[in-house]
Amino acid sequence: MKFVSVLMGSKSDYDVVKEALKIFEKFDVKYEVLITSAHRSPQRTQEYIKNAEDKGAKVFIAAAGMAAHLAGVVAAHTTKPVLGIPMPGSNLASMDSLFSTVQMPSGIPVATVAIGKAGAINAAYLAVQILAIEDEVLTQKLLEDRKKQQEKLIQDSSMIEVFL
Amino acid sequence: MKFVSVLMGSKSDYDVVKEALKIFEKFDVKYEVLITSAHRSPQRTQEYIKNAEDKGAKVFIAAAGMAAHLAGVVAAHTTKPVLGIPMPGSNLASMDSLFSTVQMPSGIPVATVAIGKAGAINAAYLAVQILAIEDEVLTQKLLEDRKKQQEKLIQDSSMIEVFL
Amino acid sequence: MKFVSVLMGSKSDYDVVKEALKIFEKFDVKYEVLITSAHRSPQRTQEYIKNAEDKGAKVFIAAAGMAAHLAGVVAAHTTKPVLGIPMPGSNLASMDSLFSTVQMPSGIPVATVAIGKAGAINAAYLAVQILAIEDEVLTQKLLEDRKKQQEKLIQDSSMIEVFL
Amino acid sequence: MKFVSVLMGSKSDYDVVKEALKIFEKFDVKYEVLITSAHRSPQRTQEYIKNAEDKGAKVFIAAAGMAAHLAGVVAAHTTKPVLGIPMPGSNLASMDSLFSTVQMPSGIPVATVAIGKAGAINAAYLAVQILAIEDEVLTQKLLEDRKKQQEKLIQDSSMIEVFL
Amino acid sequence: MKFVSVLMGSKSDYDVVKEALKIFEKFDVKYEVLITSAHRSPQRTQEYIKNAEDKGAKVFIAAAGMAAHLAGVVAAHTTKPVLGIPMPGSNLASMDSLFSTVQMPSGIPVATVAIGKAGAINAAYLAVQILAIEDEVLTQKLLEDRKKQQEKLIQDSSMIEVFL
Amino acid sequence: MKFVSVLMGSKSDYDVVKEALKIFEKFDVKYEVLITSAHRSPQRTQEYIKNAEDKGAKVFIAAAGMAAHLAGVVAAHTTKPVLGIPMPGSNLASMDSLFSTVQMPSGIPVATVAIGKAGAINAAYLAVQILAIEDEVLTQKLLEDRKKQQEKLIQDSSMIEVFL
Amino acid sequence: MKFVSVLMGSKSDYDVVKEALKIFEKFDVKYEVLITSAHRSPQRTQEYIKNAEDKGAKVFIAAAGMAAHLAGVVAAHTTKPVLGIPMPGSNLASMDSLFSTVQMPSGIPVATVAIGKAGAINAAYLAVQILAIEDEVLTQKLLEDRKKQQEKLIQDSSMIEVFL
Amino acid sequence: MKFVSVLMGSKSDYDVVKEALKIFEKFDVKYEVLITSAHRSPQRTQEYIKNAEDKGAKVFIAAAGMAAHLAGVVAAHTTKPVLGIPMPGSNLASMDSLFSTVQMPSGIPVATVAIGKAGAINAAYLAVQILAIEDEVLTQKLLEDRKKQQEKLIQDSSMIEVFL
Repeated sequence: MKFVSVLMGSKSDYDVVKEALKIFEKFDVKYEVLITSAHRSPQRTQEYIKNAEDKGAKVFIAAAGMAAHLAGVVAAHTTKPVLGIPMPGSNLASMDSLFSTVQMPSGIPVATVAIGKAGAINAAYLAVQILAIEDEVLTQKLLEDRKKQQEKLIQDSSMIEVFL
Repeated sequence: MKFVSVLMGSKSDYDVVKEALKIFEKFDVKYEVLITSAHRSPQRTQEYIKNAEDKGAKVFIAAAGMAAHLAGVVAAHTTKPVLGIPMPGSNLASMDSLFSTVQMPSGIPVATVAIGKAGAINAAYLAVQILAIEDEVLTQKLLEDRKKQQEKLIQDSSMIEVFL
Repeated sequence: MKFVSVLMGSKSDYDVVKEALKIFEKFDVKYEVLITSAHRSPQRTQEYIKNAEDKGAKVFIAAAGMAAHLAGVVAAHTTKPVLGIPMPGSNLASMDSLFSTVQMPSGIPVATVAIGKAGAINAAYLAVQILAIEDEVLTQKLLEDRKKQQEKLIQDSSMIEVFL
Repeated sequence: MKFVSVLMGSKSDYDVVKEALKIFEKFDVKYEVLITSAHRSPQRTQEYIKNAEDKGAKVFIAAAGMAAHLAGVVAAHTTKPVLGIPMPGSNLASMDSLFSTVQMPSGIPVATVAIGKAGAINAAYLAVQILAIEDEVLTQKLLEDRKKQQEKLIQDSSMIEVFL
Repeated sequence: MKFVSVLMGSKSDYDVVKEALKIFEKFDVKYEVLITSAHRSPQRTQEYIKNAEDKGAKVFIAAAGMAAHLAGVVAAHTTKPVLGIPMPGSNLASMDSLFSTVQMPSGIPVATVAIGKAGAINAAYLAVQILAIEDEVLTQKLLEDRKKQQEKLIQDSSMIEVFL
Repeated sequence: MKFVSVLMGSKSDYDVVKEALKIFEKFDVKYEVLITSAHRSPQRTQEYIKNAEDKGAKVFIAAAGMAAHLAGVVAAHTTKPVLGIPMPGSNLASMDSLFSTVQMPSGIPVATVAIGKAGAINAAYLAVQILAIEDEVLTQKLLEDRKKQQEKLIQDSSMIEVFL
Repeated sequence: MKFVSVLMGSKSDYDVVKEALKIFEKFDVKYEVLITSAHRSPQRTQEYIKNAEDKGAKVFIAAAGMAAHLAGVVAAHTTKPVLGIPMPGSNLASMDSLFSTVQMPSGIPVATVAIGKAGAINAAYLAVQILAIEDEVLTQKLLEDRKKQQEKLIQDSSMIEVFL
Repeated sequence: MKFVSVLMGSKSDYDVVKEALKIFEKFDVKYEVLITSAHRSPQRTQEYIKNAEDKGAKVFIAAAGMAAHLAGVVAAHTTKPVLGIPMPGSNLASMDSLFSTVQMPSGIPVATVAIGKAGAINAAYLAVQILAIEDEVLTQKLLEDRKKQQEKLIQDSSMIEVFL
């Protein structure tokens, strides 16, 4: 069974992370979700990664804030693609979580997306895109979804547009 | 034929981008490389993306500097995963290319890696990881490579380490 | 018919962009407004630009947030002046939209104004100034408007000023 | 006689500013150039602006570094479009000149371009685009120039591209 | 009559600037206050400075936000000490007003204080310190005030302190 | 009697600092707390440090905001470890207090923790860790506490986790 | 005897600080210069300040880098005006020394100038301006100097200017 | 046997880290040094920490650059004090390594020092200060060293100082 594994570093990240889960529901992509920390539960994190890979995890998503090490720690323990969502924070203009997630040393990549909810949504889209490479049905769903994004935008536009 | 498509916005990016190509050579992953710009050759960029997808491009990598729009433009024209390499620059501490690449709106993700050469190497690793999801041989190569990274590090350590 | 074309990347930008429209009303400058995205509706954006130019668009204004590529994409498809309004955002202190808009590569300029409402107002003023180059009536209106700005400031001052 | 007026705050800015002058030469656009400072020669600056407008200046370009006030001061004394080039500096990652130039209060816009040489080139392009609004010959030159930019890019690409 | 001249760029700055006025009241230092802008009322600003100097202004304080040019413009028209208060803003983490105020070119200094209310208070203290150089009464008041600051702090401490 | 000395620069820091005190209560570590300022009460600060050291202070914690000099001043007057907590502020994204605390010159270290409440908690943990080096009971408490942190996290996870 | 006291935190600051001394030589203003540190020699710093004030120091200038506390410490021990020069550094884009110098708490101001050599020159100018308030000869020298600055600029301009 | 354990993430960090070792030599403090990575050799890192603690490591120092996770990973596996040295880098003004090191979540502190060589020296001083808490000989050495720092500074001063 193929699935996406979604980890977050703390309970407070769930409000952002659940945006990713909605995308998986929309695309009928299976996922696991749990809270585990690079710092507070390093052993649990490592064990989970190995088990998840054995069970069929094809992509990992990790969300964390501040000195956001979770995605990097996941990437250190798997060769599956790891996507990192930097959490917004009230200090340092959220640069801390962005820089901690994206600036990985060569050899251990973390695919980083935007900070916060847009990032959670995009991490999910990226995971779907990765799974769709060998899945024609999922590819079609992505193409249809993009059409709907356009239609939504055109509808939004119609409410305010002014043409001469 | 599966391959990775590597685009860069300007000739001056090649020195960084070629680090990615070396990784593809090491893993025997096929790739295309070209210069095309989101701004100077938008039509060429779009046409290339469509052709590349038809020919078998499974992952796109886009490298650009300053207001780095190339990865975003590629992402707007494909549902394949798009990886963005922010180029280093002499002003704004390279925040311009990082922020322009990573802060994509929801629905159109760009998987962003570190700025510069480490990022180029990691974009290639990430592409290999994505292709390896359905490719056991590539997965084995990734695991062996990681072992070699460790051995290299242990060797480096042996030259300076002091134990009591 | 000469007019200014005003594009924004998302419905949520309208609250800021409408400040620009008030300026056009004040100066009796014609405008079009629509929502179109560099990423979600790239084809629509390109087609609109060509049509707008044919219909008489002399200046384009594009408002977008985060990795703000809309102004750059417009600039790639026209040689008319393109003015970019960086939208404020809750992360990165709005540096993302500013840097993504202003740091354009040589040959494809975007004339960037301040972040948010002050920028929307100033993009409109700038468009009026550009149209006024060959329009004596508009030039007079600008000069009168500036006098009114001064009078407004003197009136504001009178409410708090203390002179010895 | 229509022309573009180019001001810079200090002798050391000339190395960057001369990139703009080359663009004017290429497009046969007339220009004036001088050094004058918002702070060291405020009277000279004001007098020059008035004279320049009387002589036919249609667009002003101002280049300055650090607390870059020159463009703002020019904008305060004319209703012609004012384009600001932030100079690169060795401290604050050049954010000082960018922010000082772009963050103008509502009513007094400065059209800001990229930091340094790319910005100087783009300020000149923007000035040409503004003058081209009512000048079909200049418009044709801009379209041809853009084609040449594309051809240059395709030629650059041919030296490194790899296609399967 | 010796006095301090306090200028601000916009009505919205008054809420911050009035903190400075309270300090002048406490030290019985005379002041003038007005709104005048580097950009919206440049002529008024220049004329005011000359008149103020003739009337006895010994120190100027200028408060402005965003591309905060007011203090720099005042400094360009006087050789009296000019103190700059950067106004807080909702974008760029207030770096724009700080950098625009402090990064003055050599020869035309602006003595910059902290952003916002602490800065307004400190600009006033600095003005009092400057006037106190040749004024023994004012010097005594400053010394007494500092003692009171200490006593206030000790009193604050007494409400929360824990000693073993 | 061994204890930790906790200093803060202003009354307004207490809301953050009291998070540290709760940790000391949990670990039964003795502490002193007071308000004293590097700038407003320099003499008091110095005298307190000497007395505290004589009484048994083994570690100092200093919390301050903006140009946060308190920890540095404490470090200049003792060779005991000094831990600095940067206070959050409304401007400069709290970079001012972080940089002022951490960027100490060689020879006079300040051990800096995260900005705000997480930092207050961590300064206390760090002080406990330092005291625990020679205290087996405290070491055991730290190990048990870490287990509880893990259990808390696993409990948090159980409320949202989804496993296939 | 009136003089300006110039302190710097480390030998390496001298190369920048000597720019200030040249200005004092030009204006025949007396000065003292020494190296003393907020952290490495706090007692020496305090004692010097008291002695300097007794000997006639009317203005203090303090130059320091990184977590630049020297100016703040001087300000804590005198009610004379204290001018702070932030030293440039190779990390954090010199934001550390700027923020540490300028963001002083209310009641203890530091008049901050630009980073590096321009700042050293301007701190000296500011000190001269402060001394000139009650010194007509110095005021005349400042006015003449400003004229020379203008003449220098006009001469610079003549070497590159192009007029139509 | 008590000692300090010094880890670094890559060979290239050694040039900075060796500054810390010189301090340990000066104070006759025992140390171990090795290269091990949070990402490239996570297992080795964990095993080393456990062994080191068993052998007598009382303080850990970890140096890493970019998304600097090493100190955080060490802190997750020990309750001994962990000191983090952010490495300087060529992008993001070294904010990436500083923020990744210092912004640790509550419960798992990393005591962060300045970026680069000053930080390496200070991490060593801090470790010595921690060990000195229960070691009178080391405390005396620290006091003598500080006196030497002062004497060095006074000697430096004597080469440039000017007194009236």
